[in-house]
Amino acid sequence: MINFEYYAPTKVFFGKGRQHEIGSMIAEYGFHKILLHYGSDRIKKSGLYDEVVQSLQKADIEFVELSGVVANPRLSLVEEGIRICREQNIELVLAVGGGSVIDSAKAIGCGYYYDGPVWDFFEAKASPQKTLPVGVILTIAAAGSEMSNSMVITKEEGLVKRGINNNIVRPLFAVLNPELTYTLPPYQTACGIVDILMHTIERYFTNVKDVELTDLLAEGLMKSVIEAGKRVMRDPYDYEARATLMWASSLSHNDLTGAGRQSDFASHKIELELSGMYDVAHGAGLAVIFPAWAQYVYQHNPSLFAQFAVRVFHCPMNYTNPIKSAQAGIRQCQEFFSSLGMPVTMAELGVPNDKYEEMADKCTWGNTRKIGNFVELDKNDIIEIYKLAEKRY
Amino acid sequence: MINFEYYAPTKVFFGKGRQHEIGSMIAEYGFHKILLHYGSDRIKKSGLYDEVVQSLQKADIEFVELSGVVANPRLSLVEEGIRICREQNIELVLAVGGGSVIDSAKAIGCGYYYDGPVWDFFEAKASPQKTLPVGVILTIAAAGSEMSNSMVITKEEGLVKRGINNNIVRPLFAVLNPELTYTLPPYQTACGIVDILMHTIERYFTNVKDVELTDLLAEGLMKSVIEAGKRVMRDPYDYEARATLMWASSLSHNDLTGAGRQSDFASHKIELELSGMYDVAHGAGLAVIFPAWAQYVYQHNPSLFAQFAVRVFHCPMNYTNPIKSAQAGIRQCQEFFSSLGMPVTMAELGVPNDKYEEMADKCTWGNTRKIGNFVELDKNDIIEIYKLAEKRY
Repeated sequence: MINFEYYAPTKVFFGKGRQHEIGSMIAEYGFHKILLHYGSDRIKKSGLYDEVVQSLQKADIEFVELSGVVANPRLSLVEEGIRICREQNIELVLAVGGGSVIDSAKAIGCGYYYDGPVWDFFEAKASPQKTLPVGVILTIAAAGSEMSNSMVITKEEGLVKRGINNNIVRPLFAVLNPELTYTLPPYQTACGIVDILMHTIERYFTNVKDVELTDLLAEGLMKSVIEAGKRVMRDPYDYEARATLMWASSLSHNDLTGAGRQSDFASHKIELELSGMYDVAHGAGLAVIFPAWAQYVYQHNPSLFAQFAVRVFHCPMNYTNPIKSAQAGIRQCQEFFSSLGMPVTMAELGVPNDKYEEMADKCTWGNTRKIGNFVELDKNDIIEIYKLAEKRY
Repeated sequence: MINFEYYAPTKVFFGKGRQHEIGSMIAEYGFHKILLHYGSDRIKKSGLYDEVVQSLQKADIEFVELSGVVANPRLSLVEEGIRICREQNIELVLAVGGGSVIDSAKAIGCGYYYDGPVWDFFEAKASPQKTLPVGVILTIAAAGSEMSNSMVITKEEGLVKRGINNNIVRPLFAVLNPELTYTLPPYQTACGIVDILMHTIERYFTNVKDVELTDLLAEGLMKSVIEAGKRVMRDPYDYEARATLMWASSLSHNDLTGAGRQSDFASHKIELELSGMYDVAHGAGLAVIFPAWAQYVYQHNPSLFAQFAVRVFHCPMNYTNPIKSAQAGIRQCQEFFSSLGMPVTMAELGVPNDKYEEMADKCTWGNTRKIGNFVELDKNDIIEIYKLAEKRY
């Protein structure tokens, strides 16, 4: 186990009907005026918008609205949010939505107290020192942004997507009601399941030894996500399965499963270029990339991959040849993603094979950096992984 | 899964040598003057006191000392601490020690802002609204107070021991260096191991259904504590095992393993009367009481006890008669406690059998309340459990 810091201060209000308490929660924190931040009309159609507004009004919480957050949330909307918050003396930003809305709210919160352009944070020209508090009503179990220290924003000019990690941006509170995810389309639910799993998988494959406690916590989380994932694909109204996914989404990215380990996150970086160049969902891209990454690197530590196979996917352990178990685990994982309706090859994702070099070049900043910690990967390695992503195992 | 709130805001600084950073940590939080609160000379003999003082001086942190915390921390010292903090304009209470020192610091912190006698909190006459921040340098892995919302204080007059739970008292930060526990006597280490396990066990046995995610997290925690416990009894200088115990002590009582469940805590209440009447260590008392409690209640849900046996203690599952597995698990658990050098019967604990009725009477407030949630227990039930605690299974 290596030295670490753990900090997950977000207060979670979990369970059925909790969105009806939003007004009194905010009042209890002592806030009177908030920015109500969300994406599309989906929350109006579902009735959530009305429930939130009623609860706010009942508690005499004044609110200003800013909608229009899109997937890969845009800088211009963040800047508009900052302007509104300053003009209106907003005290808290309430994000009603998923990872994109939360990230947008986080950027507004930090930008509020910063004198320069908020994009400075994403170019490492400045570091956020203070933020407006951010509250969350979560509508999709996936990104884990509701408890995480990360935010990703896209600058329209040149479509530059950048993320940072800073403990300042961890939300003050998050309302997690699994019922709010009942009506998600199956494809989005499945993308979320892959995303949740991947946040733990990226922390699981590490070179740090003697991390049995976090191994076991991570494996427990992954096993329950896999089981809940199967249940929810059969019955989207399965409360317990939805609840497992939602709580796991927070735990998978608040760093509980990374404590004392060095995480990898190469698959995320390789996928980023894929979804940057083609219009594919993050979770779907990860479903294609991770098995290929695993296929490329498992020989670095076949025992750890065998452990993953046996403990998470219930493969039999081949004690005389752990490599066989390692391979079986990768196959099982790919099959599981596929069973959710996820693409698992480049072809299924609709990605042609003629841009691998360009993507690998961008991913390594023009072949000037390596990515990943479990195995360090350069441009050529990444090209090989894109090629491996053409196959089923 | 039932609705729940989860709130564990304590920032953890984990790993080797972290106590040397205490001065700069406190400076970074913006504090200048603190109360240095600890127990006996043990931290002076070990050199920890000097390390802390040097680090504070280097960072220009002024400090006032208050030592003398004893096991079952006393109200009079808390009152003295409150007086000192007010007179000296203290900004943070730094607890250097284990659960007793931390609880004493928590009570000082809350009492500081309260107009009446601090004991009011423990008699439910008032509820803490605000606290001086509390920081921790942990020297024993056991109570979990470093991340928990609970504090227990003893009033000298009549030796009344009372505890409360309030999120206000969760420490601001905790420095967890497993090296600081190397020199603990084996008996104290073993008491800590039992205490850590019991904080999760008390949450594990629940009537709430569909809690597989927390089941798996709890089982992972328990399995690693059992393995680390065995290692540390063989080699007290095993860093990784000490690290597992220390991190598990925090996770076991910050409510991670209780999320979405109804916890029981009957064993704790039954043990409280035992350690109240006889001078026995809390962990040792629990090692005697839990197997007896389990023996008394397992038929309420043999399958859950069988799961505990199979998943935590690796007993074979008897599918045709799960009761056999349930019983094997209770035996295994008792044997594990015994293997740590813990007493597991009343005789080994040195407790005579003539006060069971009196203890059960106190535990049920003169037979006016029941305790426990998994199975509700009245005075007679508790007497039976004390009797069952005379045996090995």
